[in-house]
Amino acid sequence: MRIVVAGAGTIGSLLAGHLARVADVAVLTRRPEHARALNEHGLRVSGRSDFTARLRAATDPEELAGAELVIVACKGGDLEPLAEELAGRFAGATLMTVQNGLGAEDVIAARGSWPILSAVTFMSGTRHADDHVEYVLDTATWIGPYRGTTGADAEAVAELIRSAGLQAEAFDDLRPTQWSKLVFNATVNTVAALTGLPHDFHFAEGELGSLVHALVDEGKAVATAAGVTLREDPWEMNVHATRRGHAHYPSMLEDVTAHRPTEIELITGSLMREAGRHGVAVPLHTALYSLVKAKEACYS
Amino acid sequence: MRIVVAGAGTIGSLLAGHLARVADVAVLTRRPEHARALNEHGLRVSGRSDFTARLRAATDPEELAGAELVIVACKGGDLEPLAEELAGRFAGATLMTVQNGLGAEDVIAARGSWPILSAVTFMSGTRHADDHVEYVLDTATWIGPYRGTTGADAEAVAELIRSAGLQAEAFDDLRPTQWSKLVFNATVNTVAALTGLPHDFHFAEGELGSLVHALVDEGKAVATAAGVTLREDPWEMNVHATRRGHAHYPSMLEDVTAHRPTEIELITGSLMREAGRHGVAVPLHTALYSLVKAKEACYS
Repeated sequence: MRIVVAGAGTIGSLLAGHLARVADVAVLTRRPEHARALNEHGLRVSGRSDFTARLRAATDPEELAGAELVIVACKGGDLEPLAEELAGRFAGATLMTVQNGLGAEDVIAARGSWPILSAVTFMSGTRHADDHVEYVLDTATWIGPYRGTTGADAEAVAELIRSAGLQAEAFDDLRPTQWSKLVFNATVNTVAALTGLPHDFHFAEGELGSLVHALVDEGKAVATAAGVTLREDPWEMNVHATRRGHAHYPSMLEDVTAHRPTEIELITGSLMREAGRHGVAVPLHTALYSLVKAKEACYS
Repeated sequence: MRIVVAGAGTIGSLLAGHLARVADVAVLTRRPEHARALNEHGLRVSGRSDFTARLRAATDPEELAGAELVIVACKGGDLEPLAEELAGRFAGATLMTVQNGLGAEDVIAARGSWPILSAVTFMSGTRHADDHVEYVLDTATWIGPYRGTTGADAEAVAELIRSAGLQAEAFDDLRPTQWSKLVFNATVNTVAALTGLPHDFHFAEGELGSLVHALVDEGKAVATAAGVTLREDPWEMNVHATRRGHAHYPSMLEDVTAHRPTEIELITGSLMREAGRHGVAVPLHTALYSLVKAKEACYS
């Protein structure tokens, strides 16, 4: 099995590193020094796993032709230019998106006729260097068919990922899970980014718990209007996650702390666009969206 | 004229320093070293004014007996213990409160039968040391009667403050101005504290401007329900303030940056309590209140 992982941030690195143990994995990077580091040293995975994977890396997709599966694992903000690079290439491959929010599949679908799988992931890690990623949360990646694929195709990739030592689950329809994660993320990431709090007990009780609950309720109303039955209740996901025993730092909090652009546009932005399309008011998500955007505006 | 300024933070220091040029001013401090610094070096005022005021200071109110006017200038969070110290003292004096939010007058009124004036101030400064305050914004202090006082009493104090080189204005009813400031503060302070932005153009345009407008609208609905006609439109105050040419850092932003307790309970808390009393929904102010409280919770 030949796999290309396009984009090797935290999630891409975790997937590439683990999959390299059971398949022929190549990584498409944006920066030449990133590809050079991976080619020279391999990719070290620490934390819940501990090994160094040998894999190929390149900045030119031509060098990585012949893949059967291309996992598009870049951050949402980098998706458009990456999709542009993939256009006209990797004929015969199935492409799988793993972005936050909604709509990544359509960005890819517009650039070629590949069969497409859709995925969302709850695993997390810390990227220590171009060639070193720490595997922190061993939660699952969920996979479903999107275009020209079936639940059986999703299950085949899920099985491959599980055989590599990660958690994965396939569904016939990903939307109920994708939307559960969207509502969860739009709520937890923005609250963490604005308060500075890791995802801890404050999110599940008292005044902040009430705000989190109200944000989840707004999100659930949008899902209902969009005809999506959520697979998991985002409030239950929130309560469950705060009881893991150690506090997780959501990526949007890490982004604002490091003065990096956040995924607010993809996450809360997706939810707001769906709300607008279906005539649902989301005043609290709109408020938090504006506050996070303003926070980004004062990085300079 | 003998004046005691009780509490010499930024506002207390600005009032005490200027008034010492036209009256006999003593300062009641909490810390002995603060009183000692003022007694030894006087109080330096820089910025828009530039002089050193000679004044007396003490931590024991007994040493400051005989005042005709006591200006209660502490931060709202220090009001209860200070009111306790004033109880049974300063017979014959008029007391004037200058706290943010609503209700400071009642805390004082409950401790004695003094005539009471109510004030809000828009001036601002930076406290560089116990004996040095910089006068930054030369905006006005507004004064009105509260209990056992008249508009003429308010005007007499306003005139005294103007003669000392500060801006002041008297009103027969302070509530329309106090509430204007309350709605303005509940909006601008929380948004600044959460975004990290100084009070600049972002507050008056685009997405953040829309949020600010929506927060002001919630506040205006509470004022209307409470039977208060605002003297100035808080949205206009906001737009005007963002055009001053230099960006002001609201005190709540300075507080969260320095990991100090904020005045959220006094400011947004006052507004939420009035909203509850009059059955008005304030979901956005409630959301921002919860976020700022959560921000305080992660200082440790």
